[in-house]
Amino acid sequence: MNVSIYRGTVVYAAEKERLAAFSGANIVVEDGFVKNVLKQVPEEYAGLTVKDFGDALIIPAFSDLHIHASQYAQRGVGMDKLLFEWLRDYTFPQEAKFADCRYAEKVYDALVKDLIRHGTFHASIFTTIHTEASDILFRKLAERGLYAYTGKVNMDCNAPDYLCEKTAESLRDTERFLLEHQGYATVKPILTPRFAPTCSEKLIKGLGKLAKKYACGVQTHLVESIAEAAWTKELFPDYSCETAIYEQAGLLDYGPSVFAHVIFPAREDITILRKSRSVSVHCPDATANITAGIMPAAALLKAELPVAVGTDIGAGPNPAVYRQIARAVQLSKLKAFFEPEGNEPISFAEAFYMATKAGGSIFDRVGSLEPGYRFNALVLDGLADDFSEMTPEEQLERFCYAGDDRNIIARYLDGREISP
Amino acid sequence: MNVSIYRGTVVYAAEKERLAAFSGANIVVEDGFVKNVLKQVPEEYAGLTVKDFGDALIIPAFSDLHIHASQYAQRGVGMDKLLFEWLRDYTFPQEAKFADCRYAEKVYDALVKDLIRHGTFHASIFTTIHTEASDILFRKLAERGLYAYTGKVNMDCNAPDYLCEKTAESLRDTERFLLEHQGYATVKPILTPRFAPTCSEKLIKGLGKLAKKYACGVQTHLVESIAEAAWTKELFPDYSCETAIYEQAGLLDYGPSVFAHVIFPAREDITILRKSRSVSVHCPDATANITAGIMPAAALLKAELPVAVGTDIGAGPNPAVYRQIARAVQLSKLKAFFEPEGNEPISFAEAFYMATKAGGSIFDRVGSLEPGYRFNALVLDGLADDFSEMTPEEQLERFCYAGDDRNIIARYLDGREISP
Repeated sequence: MNVSIYRGTVVYAAEKERLAAFSGANIVVEDGFVKNVLKQVPEEYAGLTVKDFGDALIIPAFSDLHIHASQYAQRGVGMDKLLFEWLRDYTFPQEAKFADCRYAEKVYDALVKDLIRHGTFHASIFTTIHTEASDILFRKLAERGLYAYTGKVNMDCNAPDYLCEKTAESLRDTERFLLEHQGYATVKPILTPRFAPTCSEKLIKGLGKLAKKYACGVQTHLVESIAEAAWTKELFPDYSCETAIYEQAGLLDYGPSVFAHVIFPAREDITILRKSRSVSVHCPDATANITAGIMPAAALLKAELPVAVGTDIGAGPNPAVYRQIARAVQLSKLKAFFEPEGNEPISFAEAFYMATKAGGSIFDRVGSLEPGYRFNALVLDGLADDFSEMTPEEQLERFCYAGDDRNIIARYLDGREISP
Repeated sequence: MNVSIYRGTVVYAAEKERLAAFSGANIVVEDGFVKNVLKQVPEEYAGLTVKDFGDALIIPAFSDLHIHASQYAQRGVGMDKLLFEWLRDYTFPQEAKFADCRYAEKVYDALVKDLIRHGTFHASIFTTIHTEASDILFRKLAERGLYAYTGKVNMDCNAPDYLCEKTAESLRDTERFLLEHQGYATVKPILTPRFAPTCSEKLIKGLGKLAKKYACGVQTHLVESIAEAAWTKELFPDYSCETAIYEQAGLLDYGPSVFAHVIFPAREDITILRKSRSVSVHCPDATANITAGIMPAAALLKAELPVAVGTDIGAGPNPAVYRQIARAVQLSKLKAFFEPEGNEPISFAEAFYMATKAGGSIFDRVGSLEPGYRFNALVLDGLADDFSEMTPEEQLERFCYAGDDRNIIARYLDGREISP
């Protein structure tokens, strides 16, 4: 048994209502899992050296459940454009470049490093339609031991010619991708229809068959904007709601279902999302940047839906999930301001819970530092000024609002120290 | 004549409609002022060494027209609270600490360093009611040569007892502050009534007399929230609008008038603001955090009001004005989304102009790199990835959305290189 002990101020969110904070705590890690968080080092470990981080915070690593890996190359650019201009001038041409594996190699390498730099060790990631480039990202994630779902994107209609697949080829390539990526310890393939308007019913039903055959989950965008929701209704008139398209295809039965944005859910969507334990992913910066709106996060939490956080690179600016925690709180206030009916601010604890434990729930025991969870953790320092006292919770909040990766002084994944 | 030449990609906003960008440009600086931006180094300077920054961007330093210096100590904390809780539990107790000059010394020292770190060389800054502590900030700004207006805060009603001044004492202390801070080259005192509800009419009129006697400007908060605007109307029923309170006291006649937030201006406010060339200061992160709303920036620009940018530390998270440029664009999109009537997104160029030249307009020739302006400039590097080409404008945009102070590799103030 491999045992390590780390001392510091341990902070995590076991439940969405509050943060747990333990100052001067010893976190005992056995074979990569948290055994316990204790005031005193137990007798049985008396001989072990304690790695002492002093007053630094030890928190769970972040879970980012919505990333477009290819868009990492365009982060922070074209952000004052309207959505259709941003897609036409930046996003689609960028995605087309991933036909070139050498290019994909460079971008995906930079992204994976940046994820680790910012403390994101658990992620659900879109690539592009290109199977070979998608394989490159898959292998890079696996090599670094990150916990991830990733899948090649499917789209067979309503997309630029140069990114539009033939239905049969899309399904064939997807099956090949699934077959080639079975059996990895931490990374798993996931079905990734881009969003309903770019997928024919035939394609979605075909993906449903693959979901069953390979016991595989799904990630996509859901009721992301008023225009998208209306367009989907027009394209799929026989479904009671957008989520029903995926449900009836059998896509919600075999793995995690991860729906980005969920800004305009109908009552029927909520019912299916709850029943299927699908995760709704709040990407606050991104949906503001593309003028889609703001997720009704408080209402979804109240409806007992699992809600996670995503950066949505490149509509979001960078892989700092902690900044999206701050943004989720901030935009919940604006949402309640502009649309008071049914909306209210979320708390910092709720947002932190969403970005750690809730997002981590689609993986295996990650996103918290409760006993039994993997020691996927970050050590944060330099947050308190020397002229004022701050509680651990206040330091964590400051990190999310005003800190950056320089505050992350150590990173642990499955109990091993890693660096970008 | 002291001449220096810097080579790089020079980017600035001479007008709000567009950025000017010159790659491989030589910027000739004579005695701290920009002489010219040229493709070739002129014959007359052939003997001078050119400081070559390669592909790095050379941009004007930032102007932050709304900062609460004391709140630097509470940045990024209590951000999920409602406004009254945030004031009661964080802001007012924090301000009270500035009765202690040793405390003020530490906080203001850290703030001034952080302003320089983030490239803010021009600022309009609130302190607290404490004259001695306010003097400390004034001297620190002057010692570093920053361009600033700062003044002790006035409030004589509707504030916690421990922060409430007697009217006569408030005026006497203010006059002393004005007298003691005449004749500095770059820092000037400014009248700082906190906002209308915490100031009696007698106090505001008294400040108006001081404005005339010392030819002094004013900074305050204006129509910041629905509640504040309504409260002010109740307290000052005889005025046509909130701006009229300051106008009729003679506060808009002698120096810059700097109004933070301006979220709910009436037609009468706009008329006075335009006539007096008062500057409205957009603090997007801050007014979202305190649930005040979003400034109708596009509408104010269209009404030809001068509009600048502020971080509003500590309702805003840190002194990075560049991040508020990004946020101003982002929140203008949300404003247009939630309240389409009369609102539209602003462009990146407009937001950058606001945060440099428009904000700089209350000082002497700062905020641009046009000939005749002071060489108050930042050099930015590390913004383009090695796998993709980016225009200078795109690099600048990425800096504002996703960069940080590590991208600022050199800082010039009046032509001298400085560091935090």
